[in-house]
Amino acid sequence: MFESAEIGHAIDKDTYDAEVPALREALLEAQYELHQQKRFPVIVLINGIEGAGKGETVKLLNEWMDPRLIEVRTFDQQTDEELARPPAWRYWRQLPAKGRMGVFFGNWYSQMLQGRVHGHFKDAVLDQAINGAERLEKMLCDEGALIFKFWFHLSKKQMKARLKSLQDDPLHSWRISPLDWQQSETYDQFVHFGERVLRRTSRDYAPWHVVEGGDPHYRSLTVGKILLEGLQTALKTKDAKPRPTNAAPLPSGVDELSLLGSLDLSQHLDKDDYEEQLITEQARLAGLLRDKRMRRHALVAVFEGNDAAGKGGAIRRVAAALDPRQYRIIPIAAPTEDERAQPYLWRFWRQIPARGKFTVFDRSWYGRVLVERIEGFCSQADWMRAYSEINDFEEQLSDAGVIVVKFWLAIDKQTQLERFQEREEIPFKRFKITEDDWRNREKWDLYRDAVGDMVDRTSTEVAPWTLVEANDKRWARVKVLRTLNRAIEDAFEKRDKHDKKGKSK
Amino acid sequence: MFESAEIGHAIDKDTYDAEVPALREALLEAQYELHQQKRFPVIVLINGIEGAGKGETVKLLNEWMDPRLIEVRTFDQQTDEELARPPAWRYWRQLPAKGRMGVFFGNWYSQMLQGRVHGHFKDAVLDQAINGAERLEKMLCDEGALIFKFWFHLSKKQMKARLKSLQDDPLHSWRISPLDWQQSETYDQFVHFGERVLRRTSRDYAPWHVVEGGDPHYRSLTVGKILLEGLQTALKTKDAKPRPTNAAPLPSGVDELSLLGSLDLSQHLDKDDYEEQLITEQARLAGLLRDKRMRRHALVAVFEGNDAAGKGGAIRRVAAALDPRQYRIIPIAAPTEDERAQPYLWRFWRQIPARGKFTVFDRSWYGRVLVERIEGFCSQADWMRAYSEINDFEEQLSDAGVIVVKFWLAIDKQTQLERFQEREEIPFKRFKITEDDWRNREKWDLYRDAVGDMVDRTSTEVAPWTLVEANDKRWARVKVLRTLNRAIEDAFEKRDKHDKKGKSK
Repeated sequence: MFESAEIGHAIDKDTYDAEVPALREALLEAQYELHQQKRFPVIVLINGIEGAGKGETVKLLNEWMDPRLIEVRTFDQQTDEELARPPAWRYWRQLPAKGRMGVFFGNWYSQMLQGRVHGHFKDAVLDQAINGAERLEKMLCDEGALIFKFWFHLSKKQMKARLKSLQDDPLHSWRISPLDWQQSETYDQFVHFGERVLRRTSRDYAPWHVVEGGDPHYRSLTVGKILLEGLQTALKTKDAKPRPTNAAPLPSGVDELSLLGSLDLSQHLDKDDYEEQLITEQARLAGLLRDKRMRRHALVAVFEGNDAAGKGGAIRRVAAALDPRQYRIIPIAAPTEDERAQPYLWRFWRQIPARGKFTVFDRSWYGRVLVERIEGFCSQADWMRAYSEINDFEEQLSDAGVIVVKFWLAIDKQTQLERFQEREEIPFKRFKITEDDWRNREKWDLYRDAVGDMVDRTSTEVAPWTLVEANDKRWARVKVLRTLNRAIEDAFEKRDKHDKKGKSK
Repeated sequence: MFESAEIGHAIDKDTYDAEVPALREALLEAQYELHQQKRFPVIVLINGIEGAGKGETVKLLNEWMDPRLIEVRTFDQQTDEELARPPAWRYWRQLPAKGRMGVFFGNWYSQMLQGRVHGHFKDAVLDQAINGAERLEKMLCDEGALIFKFWFHLSKKQMKARLKSLQDDPLHSWRISPLDWQQSETYDQFVHFGERVLRRTSRDYAPWHVVEGGDPHYRSLTVGKILLEGLQTALKTKDAKPRPTNAAPLPSGVDELSLLGSLDLSQHLDKDDYEEQLITEQARLAGLLRDKRMRRHALVAVFEGNDAAGKGGAIRRVAAALDPRQYRIIPIAAPTEDERAQPYLWRFWRQIPARGKFTVFDRSWYGRVLVERIEGFCSQADWMRAYSEINDFEEQLSDAGVIVVKFWLAIDKQTQLERFQEREEIPFKRFKITEDDWRNREKWDLYRDAVGDMVDRTSTEVAPWTLVEANDKRWARVKVLRTLNRAIEDAFEKRDKHDKKGKSK
């Protein structure tokens, strides 16, 4: 969920200076149009890591736009008046009216996160708070509000560096002082629970935008562009209710960096290393799956990737080491008639392995946000809600002890071309290449964006994506096996710890 | 929530025999149309009180309709296969395909209710389960499913009588045996938590239908008609997704009984009794509001009722006894410009009393599901979602210690006519009558239905409705005061108990 915001996004000063004037003008224009239409209010929620530039961004927005039409609200300690009333009262009294913009600092999300991080309550109560936030936001949207939710992010390393360089400013901290944040523990907990909150509350009508906060230029431009796009779309919509229809795709191209783009595709293994490591990892996998602790788990591996990225070969190397009674490989193609008569997740639910078993999905439920999105096989509303449905699905698997490992096998465009040509030339490989493959290749950029959104929105703590550099097949195969093994070991360890904790009580 | 299903609904055999053939034919026809269109599946959830005829109804539906197109699923103990997978797997594998109907007995609601009633977990975990059910149903509906949720109800007395007359049939009981149910404790708990579950999961896209189960004729006809109406509407909808647009209004007129109709409007007090009781209750109210335990509560009283039912007079009698610094009376008329620029609940949130204070709403947020519904001031979708938004709102108040008391002052049509005429004749009362009043009077039946739906959907344990027989103003005023006093005393007692429990731990 936060991976894309830890890769060092940055924009140089010249580009920034060149882009800002037009952005400011457009934002101001949108703001006046909003005020004139008086058709809906805009609510901007500001959350995230300490030191990631939350305060600076808000200050900047006030500079860029007309501050008379922006209400910045900081919800710090509750006042006497607020304490005497239901918790939501403080937010209701500060709601911006139609035509205006409210920036909420230290909002309901800050409160629930602080409470959970400081151990004032457990997950079940956090989930109640999450549910309350969902209901509030759903109602606000149904009543017409346009909601932007920003999570300003920094990696732990970035955060520590930034806090060191920052003065301790008590006005800019909320509950937790920057000093607190210096402790790794606080960061880890905050990110851990933050991920749970974002996963659950990123809905099509009010999605989260995760913004890397390290570079002020990148941060400011990104926020500005997201606001502008959302505003413009909503202002154009004739419907009484502005829904951010551009919600899912994060505005791309604010800088040139992307998670996929940041992969080092030149990684490779020579033959000897490969053979040695392959056998080692295969043996390790075989052992882990025979481990008696596996009886309390199941394993699901999802393989997605560019065409000709080597999914089949990687899957064969995984299977090679295993007892065929223990695993199943499910190739996913276009749905059958029976499958079309059911919700799209149905055919995957059918194949969920029982405890102790292992299912490999050769393509998967992610078809919904990849091919179905790109080819228009489902509506935008359908693939946009799919992100949270899929997160929900995978959380259910994880809660039941299923270890979920997801691979995106990435190759570059040139490598794909070479492999396509090879397939056409070598007779026994010809069955592997079709007209469809060439057509998909033309949509390379669309797929790249869709994969980016998919990873940003569905790489979760309970079911993370692993991006696999697959220009070199050997490297890819070993990385797949090693990742599987680590995931199983992590799950075993976590369970062991949990059991010990239970016993010591 | 269950009040309307405890008033002894019944249909005589002749009416039943006369109506059933046409209903059966129409149901069969709808079923075949469903099968032919293959556009969406139908899921029927069967829940409620033991002995309320759940099993009999399902049997009957199978007789009435084509059983080859109905799949009845009973989810009892989980099988080995199910236990080895995530909890939802058992439901996914039994989902009916498009064009078919699945009847789910002992579904997710049964499981969470049993778990909570038997103390396997607390409210927070129940809420997690509720949230899970909501997500599942939302997804199913987004994928096109038409969901009916039936709660078969019996009052405690009816339940006891019925169980006595029933054979213990282990096939028809789920987890709790009928013997268990004979204990009052189980019934009370089941209804208590059932109410929480229904309140939270009755959504516009998948509302609950509460059906009184005592009389088999009434029960069967009601279920049949709800199914038929919902099916026909969905089959006609051109939209890919059938939404039960007839969701909110319970099909009226299955019998002649209604909660409003069951009031004994001839109740009255003579002058001496009135004066004595009025003074007693006023003194009691004054005392309670001065009680130091009031510092942990606030009081909200909502007055709704027919035009000329005497709301103003009742409110004056409440206020008469009190220190003006302690209460505020908020008359609610058409929203102002500022109010229209906000969500409809905003102007009520503004007026929520602080602890120790008392706010009287002369008309209220229920305008949304009364006048706004009837006059078309908001869309059907808007007033339909209002029921759960209002329940949510009132639950937040209640959670914060606010005692919420809601009055519907009911008079009959003749009494209203007499009062209108009196108002026109007596000079100092003329300001009280307008053209609007006469216009509303023409919509008497529409209001009666809207009030019925309102009470059914928003009379909750945390904020129940009190229907006040108001043909006799004296009776009404005393009943209002007495109800307020009881509500405050109940809240004090509950809090005392809670405190004691806390101390003894």
